[in-house]
Amino acid sequence: MSTVKDIADRLGLSVSTVQKALSGSDSVSAEVRQSVLDTALKLGYSPRQRKKSGPSSRICVFIENMGFEKIEHFGYEIIVGFRLAAAERNYGVDIVPISMDQKIEHVYEEYMNKNGYDGGFLLGFFLHSDFHCQLKNTMIPTVVLDNLILNPCVACVGIDNYQGITMAVEHLSSLGHCSIALMNGESNSRVSLERYQGFKVGMNKCNLPIRKDLVAFGDFTSENTGPYVNQFVENGATAIVCASDYIAAGVLNELSRLDIRVPHDISVTGFDDIQIARYSTPPLTTIRQDRLSIGKSACLALEQIMEGMAISRLLLTPELIVRKSTGPVR
Amino acid sequence: MSTVKDIADRLGLSVSTVQKALSGSDSVSAEVRQSVLDTALKLGYSPRQRKKSGPSSRICVFIENMGFEKIEHFGYEIIVGFRLAAAERNYGVDIVPISMDQKIEHVYEEYMNKNGYDGGFLLGFFLHSDFHCQLKNTMIPTVVLDNLILNPCVACVGIDNYQGITMAVEHLSSLGHCSIALMNGESNSRVSLERYQGFKVGMNKCNLPIRKDLVAFGDFTSENTGPYVNQFVENGATAIVCASDYIAAGVLNELSRLDIRVPHDISVTGFDDIQIARYSTPPLTTIRQDRLSIGKSACLALEQIMEGMAISRLLLTPELIVRKSTGPVR
Repeated sequence: MSTVKDIADRLGLSVSTVQKALSGSDSVSAEVRQSVLDTALKLGYSPRQRKKSGPSSRICVFIENMGFEKIEHFGYEIIVGFRLAAAERNYGVDIVPISMDQKIEHVYEEYMNKNGYDGGFLLGFFLHSDFHCQLKNTMIPTVVLDNLILNPCVACVGIDNYQGITMAVEHLSSLGHCSIALMNGESNSRVSLERYQGFKVGMNKCNLPIRKDLVAFGDFTSENTGPYVNQFVENGATAIVCASDYIAAGVLNELSRLDIRVPHDISVTGFDDIQIARYSTPPLTTIRQDRLSIGKSACLALEQIMEGMAISRLLLTPELIVRKSTGPVR
Repeated sequence: MSTVKDIADRLGLSVSTVQKALSGSDSVSAEVRQSVLDTALKLGYSPRQRKKSGPSSRICVFIENMGFEKIEHFGYEIIVGFRLAAAERNYGVDIVPISMDQKIEHVYEEYMNKNGYDGGFLLGFFLHSDFHCQLKNTMIPTVVLDNLILNPCVACVGIDNYQGITMAVEHLSSLGHCSIALMNGESNSRVSLERYQGFKVGMNKCNLPIRKDLVAFGDFTSENTGPYVNQFVENGATAIVCASDYIAAGVLNELSRLDIRVPHDISVTGFDDIQIARYSTPPLTTIRQDRLSIGKSACLALEQIMEGMAISRLLLTPELIVRKSTGPVR
């Protein structure tokens, strides 16, 4: 493998000029830049990288102290996937559970530097504004789950929410449903907004109208779906797309309370494919997030950031899992 | 590194059960799955992957025959980046220029299989519906630039358009601009829609109103901006965010024809940072796409798909390049 110096020697340029050309700096003319790139190819140059990653790298995984159930159902497999991928790269990984009342968000950079971490993976839903602002300015290579932060050192990983809901809508449309409702999570959540976008795109793809009276923003729990479900039923919905399996569980309960049969009268889809989806009544058609792969992709993204690639988002393709809660429109 | 069999032996399970557990199959109970994952961690198991990638891998890069200028200004560096990353992985790479009139889109899968390619990288803007539909169903690991396709074998790479326009809006807002216009590309282009989304998010972040009379969808050339620029000026715009450097070049020409000074009277931003941005009058403040990194990320994404990770999107963080076409609001 040749080096920057080989290219410089071949072209009679200074090493710094070649480096500027390879980094796309304005201070090098387009012609010089192109001859440098041509020569890099001829010589089979391999980019010199800020090799901060490697066996010596130490990664800190922060996971919100969200209680056993949520850890088991969501965070656990992501961490396993991350650790499996980290093991392949001989990274050292520490798992640090934190809770909202701990004020780690005031000392992220300091904490990482003091403890000699080369990178961080932040898992959980604790990105309130103060922490968000710190991440926007950190120089520590960092990966966050489901949160977009405008910083070349910070990448977002997760499932492609947009595609996931589109899949659910296309599945229901293929079963003949036209009056499809969306029971979404909090309106101030990025995940909710991306799932709403996916809903609109899916409905447009299927040439179905988006009816305001069939779209609701609630929260990601199963507790508060009652009024919305009643409204959807009154307005003639034949299918309800839910933004999470927890929401879908609440919707199934409410429909059963109203003696509405699923899927005979109304079809329901979830999102996430956590354990309850498999064991609900009826078993839930849902959008699977492959959590092992999300964890692996987080480690891959972190490796790339540590090596100088400014990854903004690395999103995985979700999978439609068809069970018993969806059927042909009555 | 231990194997699936080691885990099976340790737990007294069949290899297929362990494989099902690792792949998240429904047919394994959550308890068994968890014990498998725990043991995988204890034994430092490294996931067995469909090792289709490696020195033997042959990749075909299709680039639309878009003529020298566009190749030089956009496609060329992406291909260089791709080839540099492919060289590190010892992939064989063939570059195949195709033009719209060639009907390759009818035979993609056949072409790739017949020629023994393990993966494809599609570069250019030739994804009309027929080809799009083929890619939706292909089994060939494929990466496309700036086009989202719902298929676990196909990943989209590119810049984060959404973040790019948000950066431009925040830059103009920090200069005191409130009446910011958007001169966008074709309304049926995914890139245009993402840039429009980014515009809305940026304006909201800066607490600025989005005025319909200051948003226009045209095309990505410099030819047809005249009427829109006049409309923006009449409606009191103090800054114009353009969805490409070509569009911005047209806007600069039109403003100069109207004797409107940039940036004194109106600020203008571009997108892409192609060569003309540096040499326009005045030099253009724009959003840089690091095309070498886009090429490298395309190779990285292709490698991951060949190894079984269903990447949907791998997007890079854009960079704001401040030159002379933006200044404080008058």
